[in-house]
Amino acid sequence: MAVSAAWWSVDRGWSPDRVEAVYIGSLSGGQGMQLGNLAPALVEYAGLPPVQALRVESACASGGFALLQAVLAVASGQVKVALAAGVEKMRDVSGEMGRYWLGISGDTEYERLAGLTFAGVFALMASRLIHDGAITRTDMARVAVKNHRHAALNPKAMLRRPITVEQVLEAPMVAHPLTALDCCPTSDGAAAVLVVDADVARDFSDMPVGVAGFGAASDTLAVHSRPDITRLRAVHQACAAAYKMAGIGPEELDLVELHDCFTVAELMAYHELGLCDIREAGARLAAGEFELGGRLPVNVSGGLKAKGHPIGATGVGQVVEIFQQIRGGVSEPDRQVPRAEAGLACNMGGSGASATAFVLRKGVVR
Amino acid sequence: MAVSAAWWSVDRGWSPDRVEAVYIGSLSGGQGMQLGNLAPALVEYAGLPPVQALRVESACASGGFALLQAVLAVASGQVKVALAAGVEKMRDVSGEMGRYWLGISGDTEYERLAGLTFAGVFALMASRLIHDGAITRTDMARVAVKNHRHAALNPKAMLRRPITVEQVLEAPMVAHPLTALDCCPTSDGAAAVLVVDADVARDFSDMPVGVAGFGAASDTLAVHSRPDITRLRAVHQACAAAYKMAGIGPEELDLVELHDCFTVAELMAYHELGLCDIREAGARLAAGEFELGGRLPVNVSGGLKAKGHPIGATGVGQVVEIFQQIRGGVSEPDRQVPRAEAGLACNMGGSGASATAFVLRKGVVR
Repeated sequence: MAVSAAWWSVDRGWSPDRVEAVYIGSLSGGQGMQLGNLAPALVEYAGLPPVQALRVESACASGGFALLQAVLAVASGQVKVALAAGVEKMRDVSGEMGRYWLGISGDTEYERLAGLTFAGVFALMASRLIHDGAITRTDMARVAVKNHRHAALNPKAMLRRPITVEQVLEAPMVAHPLTALDCCPTSDGAAAVLVVDADVARDFSDMPVGVAGFGAASDTLAVHSRPDITRLRAVHQACAAAYKMAGIGPEELDLVELHDCFTVAELMAYHELGLCDIREAGARLAAGEFELGGRLPVNVSGGLKAKGHPIGATGVGQVVEIFQQIRGGVSEPDRQVPRAEAGLACNMGGSGASATAFVLRKGVVR
Repeated sequence: MAVSAAWWSVDRGWSPDRVEAVYIGSLSGGQGMQLGNLAPALVEYAGLPPVQALRVESACASGGFALLQAVLAVASGQVKVALAAGVEKMRDVSGEMGRYWLGISGDTEYERLAGLTFAGVFALMASRLIHDGAITRTDMARVAVKNHRHAALNPKAMLRRPITVEQVLEAPMVAHPLTALDCCPTSDGAAAVLVVDADVARDFSDMPVGVAGFGAASDTLAVHSRPDITRLRAVHQACAAAYKMAGIGPEELDLVELHDCFTVAELMAYHELGLCDIREAGARLAAGEFELGGRLPVNVSGGLKAKGHPIGATGVGQVVEIFQQIRGGVSEPDRQVPRAEAGLACNMGGSGASATAFVLRKGVVR
């Protein structure tokens, strides 16, 4: 399969006129800002030419899907250069309105109207996993500790305060067993990448990063409709497709950015991404395997947990982090993953109702 | 350029398992129904496999863009069969909430908050065109009369009552010079098409319809930012790209479905689609050129004006109409366009801030 697309930071040759298509991931679509038809508006404000521009929405996976549309557009041969971006201003949709906006991205009939928030849904998953003996409460807390430690090194992170396991356990309860420090914050943010055909990548950079594989999938909105509430099938399916297309497996990755909206979600993702069995997750985490400096650093950016989770921007921001790491261009040397050549970004929507995955590799991929 | 995609109604061989990607056009995204992450939800409810599923939004052009994403996905070689659909339940976002939802798809700072509704914006355009002597008030009314006449023949149309020029002129004023009968109604509705690779089209039908060309573009949200408020530049650009890709011009079309959200918009679209100069629009319309039975029937379905305008569904519904006409399969013989082989569908978002265009031709296009 010939996917001829590459991300790069623009080292040279940039001109807005080269952009032929724009995809914006956003959950609220500017509603909190009273701004609709967001994509043409952003094209206008950014001074781009009046090219095709589209908002895409799949809850918290909106950014990943914006990227996917850019990749498909370039792969189709219709455009050479596409811009994929994501944006959310969660402060404008906070409080009651925010709970509504976020809440309806899950199941309404059996979950939201029965009082389940997203924290509530992931609390159910966590409770089941703890009951089954697959994970412990402390394992979950260790995810938060690790991601805060990573965020402390990242000047673009939102929560740069190192924390301890005890602090996580003793933080205010949100939905048992999740405390406030098991939950990602409410964030504003934006991210953008350029996806270009392999033929033109060198116009812009000598260090492009290739899209070696990608995948996407969906699942039921309602967790109760799934045969096993401890699995994230869409995440598994999206990643499996991306690995297959890239022709590599998890053991060949140098870093991973994944969707840790709640600490338990990161442990579950280890399993779905094939990093380790869920029952080994806690021990491996405690051994430092997924830390910066460990065998496979996960969420070096700080993740959703501590870098922040500006919904529509998250999936794009994950790829920006991997892009910078692979180029060796992280400006803070103490958080550079040494000799990173391959990374995986996995973005999830709702309580696992949708997911995208991208395998990125050094150099142009044809 | 090889675009290997075809629409067809499923004459044989249908199985949900063949669908590999789903794109849903919707403005409100189920918010009125308190339903978010609409695409995975619809995949689940429709009994499709858990494939990648995405909502796309570009105001009233959401349906056209859903279709475009399906075409690009198939053209990329990543999927063989994609479902493009659109849906809106405007009754759930009517009244104040509806005005907000629709209103923010235009410019907020200089238009909406100053009191301009979409009817208001198109009234400004109409006033300018009348002032310039390009069109008359009666020309506008004749668009409504024609499209109601077409709708009367279409059992799926919403407003099937024939009307007269006098009735249009004497209807309650909405925004001078537009009366209620110059404006499309508030509609619920849905539409869906399958986009398939040329290689598999014959699995499903002996009468596929090919996507010969397509295009999309954007423009400023605010009408006051444009050099000429009587032009719809995004519509022009999208259609020009579709004609170029298809290798045909407007003179080779057998029918057109275009975006008559207000009567004046249809007259303006004649100009942008290259059907005739805006100054000739009234005379040609009066001569019956764009009627069923005329040289080039426009909006045989009844158009947005009389078939209805369920926002996200509109762009997909236009293509369903052309698809059925080209196949000769319109079930009411008195509204069949004879020997239709090529048609153009043009969908517009906001007051012209975004647009898509598709040229469809009989048979498979490779």
